[in-house]
Amino acid sequence: MSEPALDIVAIGNAIVDVIAQADDAFIASEGLSKGAMQLLFTTEEAEALYAKMGPGVEASGGSAANTVAGIAALGGRCGFIGQVADDELGKVFRHDITALGVAFDTPVRSGEPATARSLILVTPDGERTMNTFLGASQHLPASALDTNLIESAAILYLEGYLWDPEDPRAAMDKAIDIARNAGGRVAFTLSDGFCVDRHRGDFLKLLDDGRIDILFANEDEIMSLHETDDFDAAVAATAAKTPLLVVTRSEKGAIAVKDGERVTVSAEPIDRVVDATGAGDQFAAGFLAGQAEGRSIEDSLIMGAVCAAEVIQHYGPRPEADIKELVRQRLG
Amino acid sequence: MSEPALDIVAIGNAIVDVIAQADDAFIASEGLSKGAMQLLFTTEEAEALYAKMGPGVEASGGSAANTVAGIAALGGRCGFIGQVADDELGKVFRHDITALGVAFDTPVRSGEPATARSLILVTPDGERTMNTFLGASQHLPASALDTNLIESAAILYLEGYLWDPEDPRAAMDKAIDIARNAGGRVAFTLSDGFCVDRHRGDFLKLLDDGRIDILFANEDEIMSLHETDDFDAAVAATAAKTPLLVVTRSEKGAIAVKDGERVTVSAEPIDRVVDATGAGDQFAAGFLAGQAEGRSIEDSLIMGAVCAAEVIQHYGPRPEADIKELVRQRLG
Repeated sequence: MSEPALDIVAIGNAIVDVIAQADDAFIASEGLSKGAMQLLFTTEEAEALYAKMGPGVEASGGSAANTVAGIAALGGRCGFIGQVADDELGKVFRHDITALGVAFDTPVRSGEPATARSLILVTPDGERTMNTFLGASQHLPASALDTNLIESAAILYLEGYLWDPEDPRAAMDKAIDIARNAGGRVAFTLSDGFCVDRHRGDFLKLLDDGRIDILFANEDEIMSLHETDDFDAAVAATAAKTPLLVVTRSEKGAIAVKDGERVTVSAEPIDRVVDATGAGDQFAAGFLAGQAEGRSIEDSLIMGAVCAAEVIQHYGPRPEADIKELVRQRLG
Repeated sequence: MSEPALDIVAIGNAIVDVIAQADDAFIASEGLSKGAMQLLFTTEEAEALYAKMGPGVEASGGSAANTVAGIAALGGRCGFIGQVADDELGKVFRHDITALGVAFDTPVRSGEPATARSLILVTPDGERTMNTFLGASQHLPASALDTNLIESAAILYLEGYLWDPEDPRAAMDKAIDIARNAGGRVAFTLSDGFCVDRHRGDFLKLLDDGRIDILFANEDEIMSLHETDDFDAAVAATAAKTPLLVVTRSEKGAIAVKDGERVTVSAEPIDRVVDATGAGDQFAAGFLAGQAEGRSIEDSLIMGAVCAAEVIQHYGPRPEADIKELVRQRLG
């Protein structure tokens, strides 16, 4: 293949986050699983929870979209594929991602349902509990894939969350083939422990079939994948199935296993966790940007840690500070 | 009159802010007046500027609405009157203000224009430059005033910004009479130097007619009111026209003049100005909440300074921290 025009093309949910403060009692009284993502299946469910929440701040989100936003802020060349509706939040999502220079030309979908939103409750400890109404996002058809865009990228990045709805699952399956046939690598994030629970068989099959070149996970997700409490066993079992495994461990840092070799980095020091939303997404952004720049695995992990540290010190899932400069200060 | 049911009822623009980072070169190339508010008169103008801006964060705003949000967060009992459209941003505005316990029952307005939005550009020095599309807000009719709500409040609070469009100006004029006839006090903020320029005659007449009991201004606005560069002369001339004058001076603190007696406080110490949006609004919130709690003028000014210091240390025009606790730590 010729030199790829883009570093990363991501397929993900096109979501606007609604971020509000909440206390632990509210999480408990609503029967939510703290720190996890749960789906809201109807507009009524979404409106009922919204009505009970405190005042919110809206910011473009979506896991893979957050990651490409981070990579673009680091200077990477990115594209995004995801479904928005023809409404105000859809316009907000499109504005925010294109304002970063990310190519985003998935056609708008008319009519109901509305653009996806995630009602994110942030507790005083900085942990976030997400309640996502997938809306238009779940209707991304395989026909909306921009084949040229996917073929033009060195890496196709996919989020596990998008495995839940049927149409995007088929679209991602097709996109993997497009990318691999064009000589690109495929990166995948397991997204969430409960998400792994829902799709363990599919995710393991993707790995066993050799269709994933880079896998991102956190401790919870990788242990859920193998239904074990033994972290090291889960890492070993997964690393055997993929050329490059990246596992984030919150304040314990992160590890990568490439071709059997394990690299470990510490978390970057921070003052205080304000809002953990986007931590994993921005870690992936830093790591993938590092890879796109041709950096070592260790330096790519450090870039991930720098980006994760930035995003958890403010509300919202995308960088606010000049992360390119933060990386320069840390790594030169 | 009987004991008022509410501390404050405010009439103001019902706006959702779109906050984005920008550099000084962008402010200059767009021909904007840094630190000021300019009006965007058409949807096309608003969309053109939005398309050029960086990624944004949406948060409910509106000057007087921010003030009642702050007072409610401090434990005050508030109501709000303002016009939203029947759209997603209108729902966001309503959610955010009612989630704070503020009474808000102005009927929604169907059809065009959309709910108001202010495109706020925050430069690296933390200064904000606002570009406001008034949308539905400019169509608040006098007929939408809830007379009982206004009569039930100890103080009616009005924003000068809302003097620009004709319908809300007539509504505020009527509201002043309703409040005064019910024995309430009327507070007014001059809002912006250019706004004072546009309505100097009207604002001076409101003061000369004895219809304003509490006037809020910053240095720029009060000097604009009297077309002078002499701050002390402007303060003296204004104080002669109103029983209680409050003037904010950014990092130089604030002063109040009540019945000829001048009280001065310093600004509260802060680490760094992140986003000056809402500084004046939250100062007014702290001061008015202090007055509602029966505190002295000096302590009310300190409450204003505490609330202003909180809001300028994060993005967004409304408090994020527990300002009630911050006031308790500062004043007991």
